[in-house]
Amino acid sequence: MAAPLEREVTLECIACLWFRVLSCLVFGRRCPPSTHLYEQTMWPDRRIIELFKTEFPIVQAPMAGIMDAELVIAAAQGGALGSLPCAMLTPEKAREQVNIIRQRVSAPLNLNFFCHKAVDADPRREAGWKQRLAPYYKELGLDPAAPVNAANRSPFDPAMCEVIEELKPEMVSFHFGLPDSALVRRVKAAGCIVIAAATIVKEAIWLEENGADVIIAQGAEAGGHRGMFLTENIGEQPGTFALVPQVVDAVRVPVIAAGGIADGRGIAAAFALGAAGVQIGTAYLRCPESRVSAPAQAALSQALDDSTVITNVMTGRPARGIPNRVMREIGPISADAPAFPHAATGLAPLKAAAEKLGKVDFTNLWAGQAVRLGRDMPASELTRGMAEAALARLRQLAA
Amino acid sequence: MAAPLEREVTLECIACLWFRVLSCLVFGRRCPPSTHLYEQTMWPDRRIIELFKTEFPIVQAPMAGIMDAELVIAAAQGGALGSLPCAMLTPEKAREQVNIIRQRVSAPLNLNFFCHKAVDADPRREAGWKQRLAPYYKELGLDPAAPVNAANRSPFDPAMCEVIEELKPEMVSFHFGLPDSALVRRVKAAGCIVIAAATIVKEAIWLEENGADVIIAQGAEAGGHRGMFLTENIGEQPGTFALVPQVVDAVRVPVIAAGGIADGRGIAAAFALGAAGVQIGTAYLRCPESRVSAPAQAALSQALDDSTVITNVMTGRPARGIPNRVMREIGPISADAPAFPHAATGLAPLKAAAEKLGKVDFTNLWAGQAVRLGRDMPASELTRGMAEAALARLRQLAA
Repeated sequence: MAAPLEREVTLECIACLWFRVLSCLVFGRRCPPSTHLYEQTMWPDRRIIELFKTEFPIVQAPMAGIMDAELVIAAAQGGALGSLPCAMLTPEKAREQVNIIRQRVSAPLNLNFFCHKAVDADPRREAGWKQRLAPYYKELGLDPAAPVNAANRSPFDPAMCEVIEELKPEMVSFHFGLPDSALVRRVKAAGCIVIAAATIVKEAIWLEENGADVIIAQGAEAGGHRGMFLTENIGEQPGTFALVPQVVDAVRVPVIAAGGIADGRGIAAAFALGAAGVQIGTAYLRCPESRVSAPAQAALSQALDDSTVITNVMTGRPARGIPNRVMREIGPISADAPAFPHAATGLAPLKAAAEKLGKVDFTNLWAGQAVRLGRDMPASELTRGMAEAALARLRQLAA
Repeated sequence: MAAPLEREVTLECIACLWFRVLSCLVFGRRCPPSTHLYEQTMWPDRRIIELFKTEFPIVQAPMAGIMDAELVIAAAQGGALGSLPCAMLTPEKAREQVNIIRQRVSAPLNLNFFCHKAVDADPRREAGWKQRLAPYYKELGLDPAAPVNAANRSPFDPAMCEVIEELKPEMVSFHFGLPDSALVRRVKAAGCIVIAAATIVKEAIWLEENGADVIIAQGAEAGGHRGMFLTENIGEQPGTFALVPQVVDAVRVPVIAAGGIADGRGIAAAFALGAAGVQIGTAYLRCPESRVSAPAQAALSQALDDSTVITNVMTGRPARGIPNRVMREIGPISADAPAFPHAATGLAPLKAAAEKLGKVDFTNLWAGQAVRLGRDMPASELTRGMAEAALARLRQLAA
């Protein structure tokens, strides 16, 4: 990997220098040298930086269930767009988290929601799933008939839309398509920029036509849930390398690349393909500010390039992660898994009980194919390091 | 896409200019302006260009069954490394093709071979497969008991090694690992540079340890046969974006990126990820010099980003292509398909008969996920256009 070019980071551009001299004269205090403007001018495509008003064209990916305000704050302090995953939060909890973030950092904020079509749990499929999981319940001494109180994933709805209208986050991102058009209109009327994820070109075109201001092209390498909503065929999902330029060619809005990006090389490559920014998730999992448990961290730190698969058994929707016991023994793909998100309901008590024993047998180990490139470091430092490495790489490419 | 920067292509570097002035003085003739040296200095990583002695760090991918000397010649004339696929050729036919190439172009040449472990056809599986295909034989009025005389895929063997020792191609590339060490030693003793393909990091490390001078990192986006030889799990195959940097980190030899690369953006991105060159296949299929039939061309020209899947029914090994009738009706993955390459034997008479009717029901429509980025143009022009676009893109990235 390229070392950060120290010479250039200590240099200032002429504009910064004049600004600093003038500031000193006007305000009578010594202003520290700034590399901000200089660095900004180095990104070959500035549409995302200018739209998001972030220091770097990097989005810290929302990762429901394993992060909260802490990671958002740290990533934002590093210059990324921090994203709070709200799919598993109540409106009250979302409000509370946003307040924590805003007290600690004055950066633009992204709130992320799922917008799948909610379907009621099918009692027969649920019963079949419980039966499939019965040996695990027995092994852990749990009562399969006990009610499950775990938080599950809810789609964006009018109640959450009120939270948006109240809190007015700068950005709102959606996974699994977009909510119905009335809700999209309300989000935009609140002044929020709407971001949505596409896994194929057809989805990108649909998202642009239905109001997305920015499109995330989510390649097959990406960890977590596939954002797919106009296709169900996992085998046809394009990789980041093929997807990004084809999405860029198909839409007019700026495109953010996601999937397999975990260092400066990946960021530079995304820009080469025509992206105006990147979304990075897996690389943030090993930051101390994430809420990944110690046993899950151990699994992540041992994962290789070919350690992840796409599964539907954890939630009912395809998602990429490191195989855990239930994925290995029932999946990775099973027709028995109830529809999203109900598959997760039956697993919740098993997950909780196994985790108490230090086991990740039933824990989502969502991770992308670049998990091996992750490093244990604070999210702020990681963000800045990736951005500087990307800029150095971009300069190197034209050397 | 970036337009080629005309200004720079018409400029000469100082070294070229002096060389031309001196040449004029010495040889008394007017030398045309050269952009060769200038362009060479623009590639951020020159290891592949210097090793292969080609104008561009682009390998035209060998594609057995749908190309011959014509495409090799045209790609080489455009500045790429031309690759002749020999897996379906006899030693005599390979010799004949190489002679044609050498009469027409004085460029470095790559001969490509498969090196799977040959297994005898299992009569019981063959019979089962023939039975599975029986309705198609009946439909086309063919006798399933008639002997099949179609060319099939043979692994690299001592007879082919003699051809290598005789013809001494500059490069020899292998798919499905490497031949046994005695043969690798003979190929290297003949002065050939050995290239081999890896689909996961573990395979790349194995290839380097076993004599590969250059490693192709074949991402999941790639068309045709997956080069996998230390894994059989299709679901774990990393995409190009995740694979390339991890292979670059794991080996010392230069890495060529393959999979999803079809234009200047993809080439620039591959260099950003740490590759020293690219291998491009699908983009060459639509060149007039390929031997793709008209109905297959029609399928290629209509394919989208999500139009390809990985199948094992066409040959017995996983390969990416556009679904044809037999892939849709029996596959894309079937446990009934005999081991490689025997699945192809039963399909050969069906393929021939259907193609006579203008149908591609049983024809391999191998293509990668960037098939949509292909354009109908001569291979020489395509090569030069992609290289110029890549150089323009690289300059743009640091602008």
